[in-house]
Amino acid sequence: MNSFGRLYRVSIFGESHGSRVGVVIDGCPPGIEITQEEIEKELARRKSGAKGTTTRKEPDIPFLASGVFNEYTTGAPVTILFENTNVRSSDYNFRAIPRPGHADFVAGKKYKGFADYRGGGHFSGRITLGLVAAGVIAKKIIKPVRVSAQLTEVGGTTDIEGAVDRAVSNNDSLGGIIECSAVNMPVGLGEPFFDSIEALIGHIIFSIPAVKGVEFGSGFKAAGMTGSEHNDPFINKDGKTATNNAGGINGGISNGNDLFFRVAVKPTSSISIPQKTINIVSGETDTLEVKGRHDACIALRIPVIVEAATALVLADLTLIHNRGEGF
Amino acid sequence: MNSFGRLYRVSIFGESHGSRVGVVIDGCPPGIEITQEEIEKELARRKSGAKGTTTRKEPDIPFLASGVFNEYTTGAPVTILFENTNVRSSDYNFRAIPRPGHADFVAGKKYKGFADYRGGGHFSGRITLGLVAAGVIAKKIIKPVRVSAQLTEVGGTTDIEGAVDRAVSNNDSLGGIIECSAVNMPVGLGEPFFDSIEALIGHIIFSIPAVKGVEFGSGFKAAGMTGSEHNDPFINKDGKTATNNAGGINGGISNGNDLFFRVAVKPTSSISIPQKTINIVSGETDTLEVKGRHDACIALRIPVIVEAATALVLADLTLIHNRGEGF
Amino acid sequence: MNSFGRLYRVSIFGESHGSRVGVVIDGCPPGIEITQEEIEKELARRKSGAKGTTTRKEPDIPFLASGVFNEYTTGAPVTILFENTNVRSSDYNFRAIPRPGHADFVAGKKYKGFADYRGGGHFSGRITLGLVAAGVIAKKIIKPVRVSAQLTEVGGTTDIEGAVDRAVSNNDSLGGIIECSAVNMPVGLGEPFFDSIEALIGHIIFSIPAVKGVEFGSGFKAAGMTGSEHNDPFINKDGKTATNNAGGINGGISNGNDLFFRVAVKPTSSISIPQKTINIVSGETDTLEVKGRHDACIALRIPVIVEAATALVLADLTLIHNRGEGF
Amino acid sequence: MNSFGRLYRVSIFGESHGSRVGVVIDGCPPGIEITQEEIEKELARRKSGAKGTTTRKEPDIPFLASGVFNEYTTGAPVTILFENTNVRSSDYNFRAIPRPGHADFVAGKKYKGFADYRGGGHFSGRITLGLVAAGVIAKKIIKPVRVSAQLTEVGGTTDIEGAVDRAVSNNDSLGGIIECSAVNMPVGLGEPFFDSIEALIGHIIFSIPAVKGVEFGSGFKAAGMTGSEHNDPFINKDGKTATNNAGGINGGISNGNDLFFRVAVKPTSSISIPQKTINIVSGETDTLEVKGRHDACIALRIPVIVEAATALVLADLTLIHNRGEGF
Repeated sequence: MNSFGRLYRVSIFGESHGSRVGVVIDGCPPGIEITQEEIEKELARRKSGAKGTTTRKEPDIPFLASGVFNEYTTGAPVTILFENTNVRSSDYNFRAIPRPGHADFVAGKKYKGFADYRGGGHFSGRITLGLVAAGVIAKKIIKPVRVSAQLTEVGGTTDIEGAVDRAVSNNDSLGGIIECSAVNMPVGLGEPFFDSIEALIGHIIFSIPAVKGVEFGSGFKAAGMTGSEHNDPFINKDGKTATNNAGGINGGISNGNDLFFRVAVKPTSSISIPQKTINIVSGETDTLEVKGRHDACIALRIPVIVEAATALVLADLTLIHNRGEGF
Repeated sequence: MNSFGRLYRVSIFGESHGSRVGVVIDGCPPGIEITQEEIEKELARRKSGAKGTTTRKEPDIPFLASGVFNEYTTGAPVTILFENTNVRSSDYNFRAIPRPGHADFVAGKKYKGFADYRGGGHFSGRITLGLVAAGVIAKKIIKPVRVSAQLTEVGGTTDIEGAVDRAVSNNDSLGGIIECSAVNMPVGLGEPFFDSIEALIGHIIFSIPAVKGVEFGSGFKAAGMTGSEHNDPFINKDGKTATNNAGGINGGISNGNDLFFRVAVKPTSSISIPQKTINIVSGETDTLEVKGRHDACIALRIPVIVEAATALVLADLTLIHNRGEGF
Repeated sequence: MNSFGRLYRVSIFGESHGSRVGVVIDGCPPGIEITQEEIEKELARRKSGAKGTTTRKEPDIPFLASGVFNEYTTGAPVTILFENTNVRSSDYNFRAIPRPGHADFVAGKKYKGFADYRGGGHFSGRITLGLVAAGVIAKKIIKPVRVSAQLTEVGGTTDIEGAVDRAVSNNDSLGGIIECSAVNMPVGLGEPFFDSIEALIGHIIFSIPAVKGVEFGSGFKAAGMTGSEHNDPFINKDGKTATNNAGGINGGISNGNDLFFRVAVKPTSSISIPQKTINIVSGETDTLEVKGRHDACIALRIPVIVEAATALVLADLTLIHNRGEGF
Repeated sequence: MNSFGRLYRVSIFGESHGSRVGVVIDGCPPGIEITQEEIEKELARRKSGAKGTTTRKEPDIPFLASGVFNEYTTGAPVTILFENTNVRSSDYNFRAIPRPGHADFVAGKKYKGFADYRGGGHFSGRITLGLVAAGVIAKKIIKPVRVSAQLTEVGGTTDIEGAVDRAVSNNDSLGGIIECSAVNMPVGLGEPFFDSIEALIGHIIFSIPAVKGVEFGSGFKAAGMTGSEHNDPFINKDGKTATNNAGGINGGISNGNDLFFRVAVKPTSSISIPQKTINIVSGETDTLEVKGRHDACIALRIPVIVEAATALVLADLTLIHNRGEGF
């Protein structure tokens, strides 16, 4: 499904080498100020061009195609479009010899040969542009809550620059760890069972290409702890706790402490080192060197996407939680 | 939201100390054989009574209240009900002095004092009974795919029995790690972006109370790997790979290799060791000993729930993927 | 799908001759007072027993199985169950010789012989019990809005009693017209395009078995009018109009005038007059007399269902509309 | 909500005088041939320019922005965009003096002054362009089923041309009746209760601006009939019936006979005759002549929209019904 959210609902579309990628946001409240510049500023954070990112540079200019009038949201669906301009399709055609770790093989099978195979098609990270744009508005809805995410480790080290340098030299790629937190959280966001905060954030974060792990609070460490270590003692009437092993969530619902979770991003699949693979037509062994422009560490560009995705969930849960207020 | 799934859709309800918990399954295809006995057999796997689990014992008899006729599903919604019989509400009333790590505090705030606070109310793990029951049918829909989950670590060790013994002696509790895999996977399950396998499994697994982490394939380890290490080389035309760092998923879609993921379960919050807490009415510091019957290691009872949840996702994705077949 | 609604969401289940029918309500705000007696009182309005209704009498006792504690909703899913007690399955088994106008034929085909054919199975009007029960709570959510529906015509006449008498004497059945209105409507309920008031009310009202037509305001008459006749002139700043040809809705959104719509109910399909039909196994012509207990005019029992269905839509739209209030 | 459908799901967006209107289609199976020309041909049927339609002429060129590659659907979301080129915003600004029968008043209130008021904004019939485009693909999915709709009455007469002439001369407008049927229907489309064919078609048809009534088969006439008149006798083993009072639907499910329903369209609200209204700012009575370009009979342009909407429902139900086939 290309949609996510109940009241603040995003629908994304587009392909890496098609004409456009974009997002439609349904349920956006009226009266939120929003400009193209604000979105561009946020998008600059996911831009390529830095060391370790692809040399495919796009202007990434958001076009506000509907739902915004005189720089305010109108209450109607907000559509934001991005043209794909810097496309070199000859770089990427991997139907017969699918790239290891990529969606080439599954897309070919699932869509019976009709998938747009150019540059990863719909599976491209490029369609996260729409998420980031929708996140700019979501961040305004959830104020005073503020979400921030940082890359804290790359290739198993916190010397991120050094690790990236080495990977680039080796024609190899690296994974990384992103940490995300939200401050000024109210008590009560999250709905029972399937709309718990963990469930919804887990859902959307795992939707981001290359994410392979999500953990809240102490996460996997909690599996090795005792209850007496892990339980966070309350220290005031507002629910403030002395520790935050729960990552700000009890019973799936925000407890007023900081929301905290970590995300594992796998290394970029595209590498220029020769790799063994199979020609799925002939069945013969082959060797593949993925030429073209790609990210040595896609994790460098993901923090802003994680922030946006988190803000989308919190905006939706805020609107759902407030439903009873008028009643 | 109490519902999950698009075509095979479950809705769960109930409270720990109410009259019943249960599940309604919408979209179940007709003609699937299902008996009360089969469900009971599966439920026996999540039963309490063993060392490290609560001494609250329930018969857990599934009552097939609709959608099944002459032991076959009819195509109408399937309802399965469980009576709560062994209830001792006096054990658990934690509105003024919320238990650390529990939903008491957030439920009190979110529901403005109206939540059923007895035994955790709707936040009880008891409502996973319905998931397990719905999973029994889901497992039949996905055949020949088979899902299995095991507890592989408790409290940081693989000596699970020993660790549980110690925790029980200490009146403490322990977390654990569950590993889940699915074999005989077809190529092509999962839908682009928000219905990727990782996104949907992440969603439902994080819905299970006490889960704080989920990782697919190499998961968090992948964040420390290089692309040349992590990429799984194809070794035949069917997409079989030499390694399975991807956990059987590329681009969010099953690649025909075994699905594999790991789940971090936090230690049970209820412990009999005295804990510091706050009386949220008076604001004064207090000490709490959680009496009553509880699990020293809730992770012991979760593998069957993880299996069921996984089968629900795969059943839904199977029905969605097959939609085009008749066309 | 057995579910309807976005924030106040009902899921219904059950069969005419199964053990239970019922409803699960998700998203019900906490703190709404609700008792079994209130629901019974409302259900009494759809009860059989009067002239022209079936002689199958059921106690129709609602059992509040979850989500209600000390007579107030808790915020968790509300489940209401009804036992089926007065079942005589031998009356109705129509697989080989399907009753004209009934779902027997389509259910047999669609569900490949697995449908519960007893008493209409899941297609029974009996599963509207859950709608009525859910409507009792919805009516409280939408206060001060009040919904009321009346049967205004039967068999083409307003002499309803006389018409029913004649139909009963003739072993025949009759259709009818129900008019529904809602007063004290606010301005602004309804969401653009697919969640217009007409769309959502049309959806749920056409879900009620035997409904074959719905029209808002002047409805089909509007098709024969000019704009200068049909346009409702505003007469005050609050949007009050001199006429109400629009039925209280402009652009799919409530305009503050009374909501008004009419519903066409077809005659009950079950009649004791011999009817020509086909044995779908042998292909031979046959004659069928539908014995057993049935309604001569099902429309007599539908107004309370129409009211409940309307209240469900308005409750959902109220909660959706209020989403922005806290923001 | 701007979305409709479960498996073949459309999301629409845009405003009359914004830059673009469009549609995103999720769940479209891969391998369906589709060209811009085919869509243009269908759109020509809703075009303005004929007697009785607005003189605002737009080229209405569909731009296939995603999901189509080499003239076949890829399985990824299909996006179709239309530029708004012929915009004269000065014609329509009705915030202080709302047009009777229009959404001006409700949009102003609901969206707190932020709605795009130009030309009806999001409430414009112009956003049905996306529905028609999505319908072109849906019509291919449902083959061999064929949907067709005709305008059969205008202003209460079948002399449609004469009636429109008179209305244009009088600066007035007219409503009309559209009849829609689908042939080659299979048995079994439609899902129990809330996804009955009547419910889903009712939902989407009532979403179309200006529709005020929908009836299936004999519809409102059925309310005046007896069961012995209304029941359609089966005449062969395939469910063929001698009459079709049911409009091809029993129990909400297609019975293999032709689907048939009628739609009541109200007269266009915009008329050049002076109308009494209220200045909602000052509260004073005012007189309004709606200048600009508008349709004397919007019903002339709606049949193709009704066809498309019907095809969308049938495509979705076809994909849902086929889900079990692979199982």
